Amino acid sequence: MTDHRPTIALTLGDVCGVGPETVVRALATFPAESFLPVVVGHPDVLRRALALVGASRTVVEVDGPEDAGRGGEALACWNPSAADVGSLTPAKVDARAGQAAYDWLVAATRAALAERIDAIVTAPLNKYALHQAGLDFPGHTEILAHECGVAEYAMMLYLPPAEADAAGVRNPNALSVAHATLHTSIASVPGLLTENRIRETIELVDHFLQRIGQPTRRIGVCALNPHAGEEGLFGEEEMRVIGPAVAGSRRDGLDAVGPFPADTLLKRAVEGEFDGVVAMYHDQGHIALKLIGFHRAVNVTLGLPIIRTSPSQGTAFDIAWQGGGKADPSGMQAAIDVALRLVASRG
Amino acid sequence: MTDHRPTIALTLGDVCGVGPETVVRALATFPAESFLPVVVGHPDVLRRALALVGASRTVVEVDGPEDAGRGGEALACWNPSAADVGSLTPAKVDARAGQAAYDWLVAATRAALAERIDAIVTAPLNKYALHQAGLDFPGHTEILAHECGVAEYAMMLYLPPAEADAAGVRNPNALSVAHATLHTSIASVPGLLTENRIRETIELVDHFLQRIGQPTRRIGVCALNPHAGEEGLFGEEEMRVIGPAVAGSRRDGLDAVGPFPADTLLKRAVEGEFDGVVAMYHDQGHIALKLIGFHRAVNVTLGLPIIRTSPSQGTAFDIAWQGGGKADPSGMQAAIDVALRLVASRG
Repeated sequence: MTDHRPTIALTLGDVCGVGPETVVRALATFPAESFLPVVVGHPDVLRRALALVGASRTVVEVDGPEDAGRGGEALACWNPSAADVGSLTPAKVDARAGQAAYDWLVAATRAALAERIDAIVTAPLNKYALHQAGLDFPGHTEILAHECGVAEYAMMLYLPPAEADAAGVRNPNALSVAHATLHTSIASVPGLLTENRIRETIELVDHFLQRIGQPTRRIGVCALNPHAGEEGLFGEEEMRVIGPAVAGSRRDGLDAVGPFPADTLLKRAVEGEFDGVVAMYHDQGHIALKLIGFHRAVNVTLGLPIIRTSPSQGTAFDIAWQGGGKADPSGMQAAIDVALRLVASRG
Repeated sequence: MTDHRPTIALTLGDVCGVGPETVVRALATFPAESFLPVVVGHPDVLRRALALVGASRTVVEVDGPEDAGRGGEALACWNPSAADVGSLTPAKVDARAGQAAYDWLVAATRAALAERIDAIVTAPLNKYALHQAGLDFPGHTEILAHECGVAEYAMMLYLPPAEADAAGVRNPNALSVAHATLHTSIASVPGLLTENRIRETIELVDHFLQRIGQPTRRIGVCALNPHAGEEGLFGEEEMRVIGPAVAGSRRDGLDAVGPFPADTLLKRAVEGEFDGVVAMYHDQGHIALKLIGFHRAVNVTLGLPIIRTSPSQGTAFDIAWQGGGKADPSGMQAAIDVALRLVASRG
């Protein structure tokens, strides 16, 4: 059987949240020839999600992603987890849901590392359910980095052109914001910011912009301190670490500038002056992105040897499993679309 | 001489910047009966600013703010500085301009403390000029606090109703964002955040909202760490300091809630859920405010025994002394307007 379509694994995430519904609704918007989907999750949950949205598509259970195309029109479902999540109560934190979401993500990651699939698109997981299952990861990003054995990675939020336009970003080429540190306390941030880490993050953003086909790759690097430290008056990280990292990237031929005060830099980025932004910590990027329309952003993990994207929404228990179109699939659609573009550019 | 109008001192700030032009343009928009202005600055600079905007108003030099009304239609100018700034080159950092801006601010502050004037509205100063003059203050706020001898103060940015509406804030009652720490390194922030300081900042915001006549005083308090520390997983300041401060304020009857993750809290504030926000550090508030239209915000120093407001713009050397309407006086107008409202509510 020769199939030239890429295989995309879609993990269902926390089965008590909006993940399953957004996955089936998003899948329905792609033509069959664009890719071969394999849902990594529980077949009963998948069937209920299809019924919830009134889809007539059937489900075929497969033993691995290689069999994704086996069922023809039917949707392939691979369940590499022993967790009993076929009939959990919606919108409730449950350790079994946390365990299953973890198992599916790990299996999909290993399949991608073994080149059995081309990319992973993940539905949201619930951190509290993860913790209840004894899995102390703050989110997908850290699990992926751990499974892939990479130390240098970065969580990036990418607003594709159409979404950037809808969010009022005056850059026809979209906007990407990567984070040099992520799920860590503010007190720990200054110690984690090394010249190497920042330089690596700049390179990851530049590489991503290249892969996604951005015609320019102007990268603005945020300062850590207010007013970029006011020449050392309040904070030396700009002079000691961030400035040298930017200078190093420039010597490598990258179009990086900064460090600039974060408040003005993010404003300038929204006004179209930069294609990519490197934020020093989680909230620096997230405050701006939430304000301009975060739900439209696609989460891309940079620095992995595999391709992984996701919508930026959470499990949204307040609207989960209610149907009626409440769970917006556009983030999931955009995440699949970005994954396909990254697969294509891998050549 | 009985004059029931309040006396408002307007400091010219850095004479090489846009301050003088915005002061004279803003003053022209207020009817004479609304207040008695006394410009604290150099009379030659004031005359040149009036000429720049084509105003025919004359200047009368006075020896103190008590003589503000002496010249009738003429604009009173008080120059309590020996710095020679009558004919400096525009748009250049100059130690003399820094010294004069400092002298004027200090004299105006002391006059306000002595109840010789009712409020101070300040035009922007240039921090580099201050430093060149050997005055190591990061800005107005710290000089004012120092002169007033207060330890508990907070810099607040207030978007008045019309400005909030123009910025897309869906709260008909405007929006205020106060900062628990300000011009200090990120590394120093966790150590500076005490329960007392945060509680004091919440109280200052509540008091301000009361003074300005806000019908509701719903105050949202930001977390320090991403995801509000995720229950201690990355950062304990929420549980150890910020949470107890909010609980204490609530016991005092204040309508304060939090700590909430800063990225979602600021989004919710813009959507109209809060009247006031307490940010833990400079950029937390400023990233959001710059994005939604910072130039419209009025800077109010909370916690002083005197009234002081200013526009939030800087010296804007790139457009200073060019005329042609480039220097927008609307921020200065709003700052004067807020000062007048605070004077009126003082009773």
